[in-house]
Amino acid sequence: MTESSTSYTDVLIIGAGPSGLMAAYWMARCGVNARIIDKRGTKVVTGQADGLRPRTLELLDSIGVVHRVLHEACGAAEFTFWVPGEDGQLKRQEQHPIHDVNISPFGNCLLNQGRIERFILDAIQECSDLEVERGVLAESLECDETLEDRSDAYPITVTLRTLSEEEANPSCSYGGSGGVRNGLFRSNATGDDWDDLIKRSKERTGNVETVKAKYLIGCDGAHSWTRKQLNIPFEGSTTEHIWGVVDMVPITNFPDIRRVCTVATEHGTLLIIPRERQLVRLYLPLQAVDGTSACLDRASITLDMIRQKAKQMLRPFDFDFRICDWWTVYQVGRRLASNFTKGRIHLAGDAIHTHSPKAGLGMNMSMQDGFNIGWKVALVAKGIARPSILTTYELERKRTAQMLIDLDRRLQPLFVKKQESDAAESTAASNGNETLMDMIQLSIAFANGYVCYYGSSSLVHKGGEGIAANLIPGERFPPAKIRNQADGQAWWTTRLFTSDGRFRIVLLAGDLRREDQRQRVSTFSTRLASAESVLQRYKPEGEKFDSLVEVITIHSAPVRDMDFFDFPEMLRLFDQERGWAYDKIWSDDECFWDRQCTGKGYNIWSVDRVRGALVILRPDQHIGWVGNIEDVDGMTGYFEQIFQSPEKILNVESNA
Amino acid sequence: MTESSTSYTDVLIIGAGPSGLMAAYWMARCGVNARIIDKRGTKVVTGQADGLRPRTLELLDSIGVVHRVLHEACGAAEFTFWVPGEDGQLKRQEQHPIHDVNISPFGNCLLNQGRIERFILDAIQECSDLEVERGVLAESLECDETLEDRSDAYPITVTLRTLSEEEANPSCSYGGSGGVRNGLFRSNATGDDWDDLIKRSKERTGNVETVKAKYLIGCDGAHSWTRKQLNIPFEGSTTEHIWGVVDMVPITNFPDIRRVCTVATEHGTLLIIPRERQLVRLYLPLQAVDGTSACLDRASITLDMIRQKAKQMLRPFDFDFRICDWWTVYQVGRRLASNFTKGRIHLAGDAIHTHSPKAGLGMNMSMQDGFNIGWKVALVAKGIARPSILTTYELERKRTAQMLIDLDRRLQPLFVKKQESDAAESTAASNGNETLMDMIQLSIAFANGYVCYYGSSSLVHKGGEGIAANLIPGERFPPAKIRNQADGQAWWTTRLFTSDGRFRIVLLAGDLRREDQRQRVSTFSTRLASAESVLQRYKPEGEKFDSLVEVITIHSAPVRDMDFFDFPEMLRLFDQERGWAYDKIWSDDECFWDRQCTGKGYNIWSVDRVRGALVILRPDQHIGWVGNIEDVDGMTGYFEQIFQSPEKILNVESNA
Repeated sequence: MTESSTSYTDVLIIGAGPSGLMAAYWMARCGVNARIIDKRGTKVVTGQADGLRPRTLELLDSIGVVHRVLHEACGAAEFTFWVPGEDGQLKRQEQHPIHDVNISPFGNCLLNQGRIERFILDAIQECSDLEVERGVLAESLECDETLEDRSDAYPITVTLRTLSEEEANPSCSYGGSGGVRNGLFRSNATGDDWDDLIKRSKERTGNVETVKAKYLIGCDGAHSWTRKQLNIPFEGSTTEHIWGVVDMVPITNFPDIRRVCTVATEHGTLLIIPRERQLVRLYLPLQAVDGTSACLDRASITLDMIRQKAKQMLRPFDFDFRICDWWTVYQVGRRLASNFTKGRIHLAGDAIHTHSPKAGLGMNMSMQDGFNIGWKVALVAKGIARPSILTTYELERKRTAQMLIDLDRRLQPLFVKKQESDAAESTAASNGNETLMDMIQLSIAFANGYVCYYGSSSLVHKGGEGIAANLIPGERFPPAKIRNQADGQAWWTTRLFTSDGRFRIVLLAGDLRREDQRQRVSTFSTRLASAESVLQRYKPEGEKFDSLVEVITIHSAPVRDMDFFDFPEMLRLFDQERGWAYDKIWSDDECFWDRQCTGKGYNIWSVDRVRGALVILRPDQHIGWVGNIEDVDGMTGYFEQIFQSPEKILNVESNA
Repeated sequence: MTESSTSYTDVLIIGAGPSGLMAAYWMARCGVNARIIDKRGTKVVTGQADGLRPRTLELLDSIGVVHRVLHEACGAAEFTFWVPGEDGQLKRQEQHPIHDVNISPFGNCLLNQGRIERFILDAIQECSDLEVERGVLAESLECDETLEDRSDAYPITVTLRTLSEEEANPSCSYGGSGGVRNGLFRSNATGDDWDDLIKRSKERTGNVETVKAKYLIGCDGAHSWTRKQLNIPFEGSTTEHIWGVVDMVPITNFPDIRRVCTVATEHGTLLIIPRERQLVRLYLPLQAVDGTSACLDRASITLDMIRQKAKQMLRPFDFDFRICDWWTVYQVGRRLASNFTKGRIHLAGDAIHTHSPKAGLGMNMSMQDGFNIGWKVALVAKGIARPSILTTYELERKRTAQMLIDLDRRLQPLFVKKQESDAAESTAASNGNETLMDMIQLSIAFANGYVCYYGSSSLVHKGGEGIAANLIPGERFPPAKIRNQADGQAWWTTRLFTSDGRFRIVLLAGDLRREDQRQRVSTFSTRLASAESVLQRYKPEGEKFDSLVEVITIHSAPVRDMDFFDFPEMLRLFDQERGWAYDKIWSDDECFWDRQCTGKGYNIWSVDRVRGALVILRPDQHIGWVGNIEDVDGMTGYFEQIFQSPEKILNVESNA
């Protein structure tokens, strides 16, 4: 029996993996009318991605869940290389740091993708009733391009079908850049995931529903159904390299089994990744070193073949395992979608880029995609921001996707080439080839997300070098731990600039013990409060003064030399119910009880401690604009390109 | 309609507040057959206790939830005093640290009791199916003393009745050391508490059940029903001092409203406690300063009277509030139960001590009570430990309870005495009276839980001063952050020594780069492995070698100078399924990516870096015994007084 009905939603998200959930977070947090569906009947519990980079952890801090990641994850601060010595025996070489401890509050760590999804799901639940509809398949997609210019129109039509339990939970399915072998047992799920193992929607099996949407975000993986409907080419190719991946509890005397390391052997290079709950992940090349893998049938590979290969590569050390949490076989496909956006439909995650998992970047890039498109679609769907900002998505994310694929391409030969029994040759560049270590050093800033190279756009106004050399428009705001003026407590800026959908004016107010600086800040505040101020002009009727843009002040004097009430009222807004906003005034001051709070923020940002600077942050903590404290016009100009005129917002509100 | 039935449980806990939940945690973790009931229909959500001391946070670390506390709580590192200046106007004096940043990983913080209960409940759920049975009242208690010597007997009989919704959720009830005004709305509950607001057990209303138990722990608050059934006197008295407490969002220009401070005025002393979610708690003396509060009727006090008193005390600053999360009125009762234990029944928390909340210690002491009795009852109920260890509960906790009440008595006059308009007099001791600041300094080690003064007993063998001057039997193991030999990651000992019910042999192995030290450690390991070893003799049949006692090695050489496989096998046990135990070998080494990991553990413990020491930790991280690495006999002697002989354990197992 099937039923059919039609419903309306502002935003439909297809796919509830890391990128889809990140996008959904913004919908939940910004109060957008949205839905998120996934064809799988249950949440991922084992396997899949596991690497988390510093920048991703910063994002997770901004949505309030990073403490849970750090509690469960396995840290990875160093990379160790094993190569054959002159006697042909494996030998440990030097260890190398994977990240720079001074650039981010967070390092690299490893944790199963399913746990990350759990934390994002909980962050969504904390601020809304949005739930993932599992076991629901999109079956047709139409888009009426003639309606795309009308903000109140629903140009997208999707039909959804609720799957039967068998359809939603196939015993063995391939997807993403790897394959999934489902093994959902309560025994390998964490307590707070148990509820998700209870199958849902059975009574609705076969239901067909027509959904009309204003925006669609396709996060449906490497074999993206959404991308195919849009006829967007997925350029690149599948290589002949076949890899095995296994999450197991090792029984071995290899001494670095609990350290991130590569083991270069004559059979190719093995990658070892220690994980939570005593698990270790191995990546192994399964084809022959001479490249004759074309004759290997991927489906014929067994867990025991992977076991034997690992034994072979780790010789003379013993190796085996009895507990296997998950395993799969994948063939490297290195592909990039030619477009990330078509009309009001955007693609994110594996749907637009696939590559090998060896750089440990896949989940990170996918989450950052979802994070990037999510707030933009949310603000446009709410009528706050102009639809034109959506074009920045492809501009910003396609370059990083291309860089990711390039990095993966350069890494590949290092893992599959025959390793000479020569320590000197395997560490230094040979015949112009890069070594793995060179690659890692080169890519450290990009891979860890310290830099992202977002280009100039309506959301990124380049400039301001003379004012704050290290606050580069387009890049993330370099994190610092700063102290609250009212209570003296130290917070990382990554958490303070919480992902709530608001832009931020960060007033680096300088040293207010000086009269001239007090005067500059006072003038700035007066202009911000005036009727012509961008905050006044774009504020939706009935909303709070800072509903679109929050003003955060970070001064450079010690906390004890200033008083919360020394600052202009505009910088610490009064609320009839909640009194003064104590969370708006901060100091770049050292904190005796917190070693991470060093009072070095202005130095990190390269901002003059007396004169300060004015910065606009986008909702995703990326820098949009930098200027002098006097440059209120420049600041206003930035927002004028982004926000809808208040009348426009009013119209949208009244249509809702 | 009522039904009656009889059931059996090893341990029954009455009361699911902080002390009852801590005790229940041990039952869940150790796999004890246990039940926990509470007469209230729902979990606490607002109000009640809120202060968390460093030692309590260490315990919460050992059960795996401290990261959630730190994420939500409001930190409190300093105490500020406001007193009238020479002109009679309130003036801020110096700030004083509340805790020593070098003694514990954690400082002081503030968070609603309901959140702490949530975290413990989640820790319980993570390891068992034990659930709090809410809306269940104990109605009768009998204990057959003739059965108390038989380990397989159930000498305790309790009848339980399931309450109706009205009985379980009275609109206004008084309990604990303060009163509770229920205000359960979804709006002031956090997302993960919502489920608990759904009323349960309705269909079972009126059911009467007879429960037979081996052990009973009464954690049912200041008006403890359990204590009354046992006719245990509750000695002390209720003073005439009446206090108001309110959790609200302040509207004020008092500059330190977001800092822990006292404001001494002619109307008595106001205590200000900043809290999570913009809340601030105020404690106000409501009686007249001349002590004529006898005429005040506690029930007649309104929220507005509290508001007016706060306004009066904070003059000339403005003060008001519109949002009130919770408020109550309490009369200080300073009482101590004459016994904490009767036969197989133990009392914990407010049931044995009441006092004012001003020292911020109530919830801490109660949790520490529950933590102390919990593991002892759990191990005895499982037949692992001798029942004689249970006598240490009163020995250890009664002294701390007495100290707490003494501290509270000495604090009291400082809050209610008339404050002279003389800054000099109010800071220095006047007429031999202590000032608040003096008191805080004096009590800092006790209040923060750095010391606990547990006396000599079968669980605490005094001695070892010459070997490790700062490892004092009876006290907690001073925390340090140390590095894992196998993966290099840094962990606090508070988390490493997880509360799983096991004793621990901590082998401070010294510097194993030296041949003589390697020999000492090798000899120790050989003796540990021998058939006469305490681990071999007491190990229950079929259980792992370290099921009762875990061996943790912390050496003093740098991680890079040693290899995991350099250590004797006995120190890194092999498991057929899980391989080598990589989590057993640690180094007191500095870690470049973690500023808290300073390689100073041996210094903190005052242990020779070459020769090391041998330490026994109880399951609660308290030091039981200290000796030289050679003193295996001394170590064995410790365990012989605690564990049941293996035959005894076998018998219990076969009876179960």
